[in-house]
Amino acid sequence: MTMLEIIEKKKLGKELTKEEITFFANGAAEKTVPDYQLSALLMAIRLNGMNYRETTDLTLAMRDSGDIADLSGIPGIKVDKHSTGGVGDTTTLVLAPLVAACGAPVAKMSGRGLGHTGGTLDKLESIPGMNVSLSEEEFIRQVKEIGVAVIGQTGHLAPADKTLYALRDVTSTVDSMPLIVGSILSKKLAAGSDAIVLDVKSGSGAIMHTEEDSIKLAETMVEVGALAGKPIIAVVSGMEQPLGTHVGNALEVKEAIDILAGKAGGDLLEVSLMLGGYMLLLAGQAETPEEGQAKMKAAIDSGAGLKKLKEMIAAQGGDPLVCDDVTRLPQAKVIREVTCGRAGYVQKMDTMALGMAAQAMGAGRLTMDDKLDYSVGFVLQVRIGDQVSEDTPLCTLHARSEEDAEKAEQAVRAAIRIGDEACDRAPNFIAVVMKNVLVRLGEEDQ
Amino acid sequence: MTMLEIIEKKKLGKELTKEEITFFANGAAEKTVPDYQLSALLMAIRLNGMNYRETTDLTLAMRDSGDIADLSGIPGIKVDKHSTGGVGDTTTLVLAPLVAACGAPVAKMSGRGLGHTGGTLDKLESIPGMNVSLSEEEFIRQVKEIGVAVIGQTGHLAPADKTLYALRDVTSTVDSMPLIVGSILSKKLAAGSDAIVLDVKSGSGAIMHTEEDSIKLAETMVEVGALAGKPIIAVVSGMEQPLGTHVGNALEVKEAIDILAGKAGGDLLEVSLMLGGYMLLLAGQAETPEEGQAKMKAAIDSGAGLKKLKEMIAAQGGDPLVCDDVTRLPQAKVIREVTCGRAGYVQKMDTMALGMAAQAMGAGRLTMDDKLDYSVGFVLQVRIGDQVSEDTPLCTLHARSEEDAEKAEQAVRAAIRIGDEACDRAPNFIAVVMKNVLVRLGEEDQ
Repeated sequence: MTMLEIIEKKKLGKELTKEEITFFANGAAEKTVPDYQLSALLMAIRLNGMNYRETTDLTLAMRDSGDIADLSGIPGIKVDKHSTGGVGDTTTLVLAPLVAACGAPVAKMSGRGLGHTGGTLDKLESIPGMNVSLSEEEFIRQVKEIGVAVIGQTGHLAPADKTLYALRDVTSTVDSMPLIVGSILSKKLAAGSDAIVLDVKSGSGAIMHTEEDSIKLAETMVEVGALAGKPIIAVVSGMEQPLGTHVGNALEVKEAIDILAGKAGGDLLEVSLMLGGYMLLLAGQAETPEEGQAKMKAAIDSGAGLKKLKEMIAAQGGDPLVCDDVTRLPQAKVIREVTCGRAGYVQKMDTMALGMAAQAMGAGRLTMDDKLDYSVGFVLQVRIGDQVSEDTPLCTLHARSEEDAEKAEQAVRAAIRIGDEACDRAPNFIAVVMKNVLVRLGEEDQ
Repeated sequence: MTMLEIIEKKKLGKELTKEEITFFANGAAEKTVPDYQLSALLMAIRLNGMNYRETTDLTLAMRDSGDIADLSGIPGIKVDKHSTGGVGDTTTLVLAPLVAACGAPVAKMSGRGLGHTGGTLDKLESIPGMNVSLSEEEFIRQVKEIGVAVIGQTGHLAPADKTLYALRDVTSTVDSMPLIVGSILSKKLAAGSDAIVLDVKSGSGAIMHTEEDSIKLAETMVEVGALAGKPIIAVVSGMEQPLGTHVGNALEVKEAIDILAGKAGGDLLEVSLMLGGYMLLLAGQAETPEEGQAKMKAAIDSGAGLKKLKEMIAAQGGDPLVCDDVTRLPQAKVIREVTCGRAGYVQKMDTMALGMAAQAMGAGRLTMDDKLDYSVGFVLQVRIGDQVSEDTPLCTLHARSEEDAEKAEQAVRAAIRIGDEACDRAPNFIAVVMKNVLVRLGEEDQ
């Protein structure tokens, strides 16, 4: 078997065997196959596709190219959650303590932000003292003791993905269904959970731009999960606007605390409850997703969710008092209120532009070496469909300087279209996909 | 403009602009674009294609990536000839002196053999003393003085092709129509001629396996030639068996001398006359290809063609007496006569296997560093369609040792199928393509 033969087969649209797929995945992990051959194969896969069986073999070969976390020391069914990337998307900070408070162990490895989307680890590190670098032993002990831990990746997970992802980024092969599935699921499977709930974003700033492609991606992940022996439920949700109202690291922590304290609601809460309902279902802690949602609402009302977040912060060396007094989180020097400036309806938001505006303020990275300013970002005061007047608050900017605030104001204004025509609210949910079931969610379900 | 945007466009099946094509061709020549991006683009081109306009821009950008020979000092219309690669294909050695003897200047740059096909330069170098490394000034002076010169490439022609060809070879993107056309025509256009006759081979050992693909390649080259302002006529010829009866460097020189001396005929003569007829037409030395063919036949009968070959050999430092006494060419130690071994009909020849058998004897290269033995090879005594008996001579082997002769005998026997069923002769010509004209050649034209 040679790499040239493998490229030739996929070029001709033929199905690759498990052995061929394992050959190039290992070659990518071990750097024994040259980049120029991998990138030719990636383009052939992008253009000629892979079936479910090939995609599963790719996922498993990538998973097996590195370490696999062993969570068997934690009793119960461990359910992981993954989002394909959003702006103002703080579901992990809401869900991890809430689901744990409802009895399901949450042993979660998260990532850092890059580009226009934030990362859970960066948000957590905005809490003074918070440590996200636990050893596997510490990680497992914490989940056994308090039911929840959110940390950075331990070990050397899916190194094949590292090579392939870097190449996809520079060869225009990011938007390939099998390559996306292989990349996401190989890492999730290597992270050792028993089941997974996926939040597949759809919209202009998301990895899939159309509803049909997003549903197809969700279906592929569910099918591959089934073939790999891991139950997966995928929620397809809209990304027409930032999910939460807060964008920026400490600001997003504040919004999660407000939600757990019962002081805030909105789309972030709704999507969190939807995902959490399926997590509790898969974890065996609820008979139906609705029952899971009811349990989580009760945990908000009782304060059990916020208490669990405090326990997690304390266990990881952070200041748990931020949960009682959010001003203990990093505060920006300059706060600027921005009004809509004209009357009309909020018709459209460029989610990616909003994410990049926050990044430019210092909340996000352009390269992995960039240092973040945890305090900066903005709080949106409007949603798509809102009717506004000239003086209606548009957003509150949290900036490092007046100059930054000025630039951010212009960027946010440019990213939000206010027009004369009335406009529907943007749907949160598009579909839920589980094995052999696709539920399209219409207005009445929202 | 970035390489990533160019890859993205071609991935989506869009047409690339001249600027985009020039950007990546120059990036390939100057090594400023990484191989992994070039190979992703090559695969996207292989799978999504290029139209005639894009293919022309690619050809011209590759031509302009290096030196362009200036043949303007030579009076008259310079017509080049190119074959897409054959076994026992010595048309250049027959045509260069013959066309020159008919009044058209022949200033030809040729290549070396690699793999199963031979190279004109290697064949010429089997003539004692022959020098194929002339400077551009010497080259032009020789053509002005005697009307013909065949040498190795001068200058640094089409360096973009060097990079792209090496990548295509290892990324399974050799079989792409626009990339084949760009590779061949960029070098031919850089070689400075005014018009080109192409011999596009079709068959199992050729670059295009089917007649339809071969005709499509011929049509593309003719169209691109027209868009680039160079008249091109393409002959599509069969490669079901070696063109000449002789395979091996000195042996092929001998066959060319025999043909010019009027002592031999057969398919090599027929194809040479066909190509030469169009060369003389394009050079303005004949009103019709038939008139050109008649002039060449006359030049054989009068000895003018052989005299021109002698002049060329003498001008390039070689021993012109080989034309009178072919035993002055390198002679192999071992000569072995091989008979058919069974009665029947010659049904099929594996041309590529025959080429590789000659290569294994020492006549060809596996890598560019291999040294050749000019004396070795074989002379086939049968053609497809021949009826043979057990004792009919199959071939004469010219080998370095009895051991080599033994291996070659087995290889040649394995490559030639003799069966009970009678079988048609293999056609030499499939089609002739010129601007807006495709002439399919049936039996009656041959």
